[in-house]
This record gives sequence, structure tokens and C-alpha cells, in this order.
Amino acid sequence: MTATLRRFLTPGGEHRDVATRVLRRGRDAVTPALQAAVDRLDDASRTQARYHLGWTELDGSPGAGGGKAVRPALALLSAAAAGADVGTGVPGAVAVELVHNFSLLHDDLMDGDTERRHRTTVWVQWGASSAILCGDAMLALAQEVLLEAPSPHAAAAARLLAATTRELIRGQAEDLAFETRDDVGVEECLSMASGKTGSLLAASASIGAVLAGAPAAQVEALSVYGHEVGMAFQLVDDLLGIWGDPAVTGKPVLSDLRSRKKSLPVTFAIRNGGDTGRELGRWLAGDGDAGEDELRAAARLVEQGGGRDWAAAEARRRRDAALDAVTAAGLAPGPCGELVALAHHLVDREF
Amino acid sequence: MTATLRRFLTPGGEHRDVATRVLRRGRDAVTPALQAAVDRLDDASRTQARYHLGWTELDGSPGAGGGKAVRPALALLSAAAAGADVGTGVPGAVAVELVHNFSLLHDDLMDGDTERRHRTTVWVQWGASSAILCGDAMLALAQEVLLEAPSPHAAAAARLLAATTRELIRGQAEDLAFETRDDVGVEECLSMASGKTGSLLAASASIGAVLAGAPAAQVEALSVYGHEVGMAFQLVDDLLGIWGDPAVTGKPVLSDLRSRKKSLPVTFAIRNGGDTGRELGRWLAGDGDAGEDELRAAARLVEQGGGRDWAAAEARRRRDAALDAVTAAGLAPGPCGELVALAHHLVDREF
Repeated sequence: MTATLRRFLTPGGEHRDVATRVLRRGRDAVTPALQAAVDRLDDASRTQARYHLGWTELDGSPGAGGGKAVRPALALLSAAAAGADVGTGVPGAVAVELVHNFSLLHDDLMDGDTERRHRTTVWVQWGASSAILCGDAMLALAQEVLLEAPSPHAAAAARLLAATTRELIRGQAEDLAFETRDDVGVEECLSMASGKTGSLLAASASIGAVLAGAPAAQVEALSVYGHEVGMAFQLVDDLLGIWGDPAVTGKPVLSDLRSRKKSLPVTFAIRNGGDTGRELGRWLAGDGDAGEDELRAAARLVEQGGGRDWAAAEARRRRDAALDAVTAAGLAPGPCGELVALAHHLVDREF
Repeated sequence: MTATLRRFLTPGGEHRDVATRVLRRGRDAVTPALQAAVDRLDDASRTQARYHLGWTELDGSPGAGGGKAVRPALALLSAAAAGADVGTGVPGAVAVELVHNFSLLHDDLMDGDTERRHRTTVWVQWGASSAILCGDAMLALAQEVLLEAPSPHAAAAARLLAATTRELIRGQAEDLAFETRDDVGVEECLSMASGKTGSLLAASASIGAVLAGAPAAQVEALSVYGHEVGMAFQLVDDLLGIWGDPAVTGKPVLSDLRSRKKSLPVTFAIRNGGDTGRELGRWLAGDGDAGEDELRAAARLVEQGGGRDWAAAEARRRRDAALDAVTAAGLAPGPCGELVALAHHLVDREF
């Protein structure tokens, strides 16, 4: 870490408080604009989108709310970090949240996931066609909202978003293709994660700066920050998918091994773990419901094959790369400190 | 028809020759740019898109080519009609063709259509997920291509395309919803056709003028032209779906009645045909494979209920509204004459 960075670091546990405040503030700032945008959808898509976003329940009663809204918070921070007022980032925040949810709607259908945050997914409730159309409509709406932004840089932001969407799709296409292959390498797996997770976080963390007309070097630094935070987040998520505490993650114990997912630590161990890796590879290629003892044995193979240490080190390395990028870019100190806190909050989880 | 219009009218059969030349010229002008755009897709989407567009067969050999490419031809003509060189319209032509094919890929999946132009559809060949992702990628690519256009009006064109895409989705959502309703009115049916067919033809016929920075009145006239030609085309298509000659349409005789489709002439007859309409409505609500005698009896009910005459008159009225709009807008005479010929070619079919 650079000396520049340390200046912004808030001591220990304070990251959590700062990040929590930033996320809440971001969500409060973006929700009215996001709701106004969603209101423009056709009747069917609007109903489904409001349910999917956690604003309403199936019976029309108010919902318990949606996810953490990390992407909108990043978009708003990126405008502020470039010295613009927070409002400049709002169309970008709405757009990235719409693209994120477009991809969730389509991915849930493709992956056959019947639940998201303990609620029935849209395709299960309304059918596959509705999930396709609602996602399509949210993607188109994202571009509309962005192109209506009162910024001379709206078209540049829209171009970034379109290119990002294609990256997102590339990542999902690779993820699906990997399911039927048993020779996926670590680099391919990282490239897939870069498409599925890194690209939209990179766009989220830079789109506000684009709308603000920030210098290219600042936009690039924020993009690197978002991309590396996204990759670190994914690596930690993969670690928690094996060793996470079900009480904290909300997923069953050893869930990623249960579904024989070729996650990053698993792939590393298979490719770099010698005989242990080959044993893990043979187990992963098998099928049938494995008992907990068998799953624990597989987790030990991932660990012995070096997958756990590598993923943890890689997550820290990428988090630090994110912090180095953002703290060396001459951004506004307050928002920059909040970006630092957010990176720690998203990556420094118990694993 | 106005006096202005008559000036552009080429005698009788010449419409066909002019339109054929315009379509061929449009396709030749747009294909290299469309191919370059499709080459930017991820590997899987590119393979599927090239097959879907008729450029390659499943074994990788060259394909027999795709559809008529009406939308790109309109986009190029609209730039020329606004006095710009044809190249100005190319990014618009590529973008509308990509959006059209995005909607075909998703619609084929939603409608369960296993063939398009006598070839297996993408979802049948590569699976539902591939059709979803390939469509998504083409939609995002359309925006990218447009926003890269070397025109100060690229953002306005991209905004038009995004709004149009949502209209397209609204139309498809209504079409799906109508399948389970037996009380659909003529206005609702027209509004659905406006979304599914009219909106993208309106955008196609005006996007070149938008990129050329044409005055709002010209853009609006071209948009009306495209919309009304699209509606007229749909009405004629619905007539041909009942009374078309299979040798000409390539579809089975009485095909729309065979699938009990609530097309425009059918809906008109049900709602306005008195006892005849009610009888038709009861037949349409039934199921089972109907023999040819039963289908011919249903066709007579549509005719007796006034559906055939209404649809034919409505198609002519809308074609004339298109011609009036475009011939009164002070557009460049050459391209304007070609738009007139194209409208006749698309609408004046045997029915």
C-alpha cells in the first residue's frame, strides 16, 4: 500500500460504519429516480420489476426492500470523487442498477434458480417469457435513462454501459460453457469472473466520473478500482461458498461444493494441486448427492491443493490494487476515503 | 393522395423494380458494417448470430443469406431523404437490423417457433440460454454501434432506438397476454401491432434523418411514414395469413386460422360482426385440429363479419397516410420517390 493510501484509511472497525452509511445514503439518493424509471415500463414488466427489486410482494403489499445497492452507491461516489455534485451520478446509478437487475432476471432463468433472497424468482412466478421481456425492457430503459441525463457526456456514459453489457454477457456465456467442460484453466475462470462481476463494478465505479466529464486518468483509476474490488469480492464469495458460516452467508454449508461448482479456488486446486488436484477433479466430474463427510473431504482437497490460500492472497492483492489505483488519482479526499472504506467492507469478510 | 405525391409516383409495375433495387442496394451498403459489428460479439454469440442472419450454415459453410433487410434500407433512405450522404445512415441501419434480430431471437424462443425461413431456430439448435444471451448481446451491440457513429446526433439516435426497443417489448408482452384473453378489442390489437411492427419501422425510417441532423418536422414525417407502412404491412400480412396463396406466402393455406390466431381482421369481425362475430369468437375459443372445410367456414365468418374489407381498407388508408406524410415533408425528391415505391411494394400485395 502506498503512503497516499494510508492517509485515507480509517481505523479498523470504522470501515464498516462508513460503508454502511455510504450504502444507505446511496440507496436513499437513487431510489426515487429508480422508481420513476421503473414506472415507465409497460404494465407487465413494471409489476415484475417492482417485485424483483423487493419493492412489492406478490399480493401487492410493500416489500422488504432489495439488495445492498452497491453499484448505485459506487456510481454516486464516482461522481463525487470527480468533484461533481452527487446528482450528476444519479442517472448513472439508475442505469447500472437496471443493467444489474436485467442480468439477474435473465441469469436466474438460465441457471434455473427458483429463489433469490428467499423469494420466488420472476420466471417461476410469471413464466420464462416474462422474465426475458422484463429483463429486455430494463436493459433498454437503462440506456434511455442515461441518454436523458443532463450531461454533455451522457453519450460517452451510454457507450461505456453498452460495452459493459456485452462483457457481462460474455462472462455469462463462458460460465454456461464451462459447465460442460472439465479442462477450464485459472486464467479462463478469472476472465469469466471479470466479465460477470468485474465489468459492471468497473462501470459502476467510473460512470459518475464519466458523466462529470472527469479526466481520462481519473476515469481509468476508478474503473480499475471497481474491477479489482469486483474480482476480490468474487474470490471472497467463492471462499465463503466453501468455508463460509451458513449463519452469516445465508447459504447451506459447503454450498458451492454441493453443487459441484467450478469456482475459482476449486479451479486453482485442480490445475495446480498435483495428485490432490487430480483427485479433486475426478470428484468434481462425478455426480449424485454427496453427504457432508464427502463434501468436507472435497473441501480439504481444495485446501491441500492450494486453492484456499491462493484465493485469499489473490483477493487481498486485488483489493490493494483497487486501493492503490483510487488513492493515487487525485480524487476528492472525502469520497475517496469512502471508496476505500467500501472496498474493505466488501472484501474483508470472515473466511 | 396529394398532388405532391403524384409527382413521385412511378407508373404501375415500376414500383416493384425500384423497390427491388433499393432493397438490394441497401443490403449491399449495410452488410460489410453489419458483419464487422457482429464480428465483435463473443465467440458463442457470433457463431449463433451469423447463422441466424443466414450468413453461415450449421456446418460452417456459407449461408444462402437472410431476409429482405427492409429496415436497413429504410434507415439508409432516411439519411438520403434528409440530404445527407448514404454513409451517414449506415450506423443507424446496422443498429435497427441488430435490434430487429434481437427481437426475432427472443420471440422465436417465447413463441416456441422451431423454424425460421425453413431453418432450425437458434434456441432449438443451441438451447434457450444461448438464444437469450445472443439476443441480449445484439441489443447491447446495436447501442454501441450507434453511439460510435461519427455524428453529433448519435446520442439522439441512440435514445430513439432505446425508446423503440421498449415499444417493441410492450408489443410482444401484449401479444403474449392476448393469447389467454378472449375479449381483446380492435384498438388493443392495433396498439399491440404498433408496438411489435410499427415502432421499429418508424425508427428505421427516421434514424438516418436523426443522424443527419434533419429538422424535427422531417424526422416526424419519416417516422409517421415508417409507422404507417408498418401497420399497413401487418394488416396485409394478416389478410395473407387467411386468404394468401401458399405458393406465394410460403405458409400453409389458412395458416393463421389453423393456429386460431387473434389477428387484426379476425378481431375486427369478432367485435363488429354481430351474430357472425359471436359465432367466430366461439370457434376461435375452441381447440383441436380443424379440417380444411372447418377453416374455410371460419374464413367466411371473418369475411361476413366485415374483417376482410375493414383490414384491406385500413391497409390502404395507412399506406396513403404514409405517402402523404413523406411527400409533404420537403425531402430530397430521389430518395422520397424510392420511399414511395417501397411503400407500394410492401403493401400492394395480392390479397
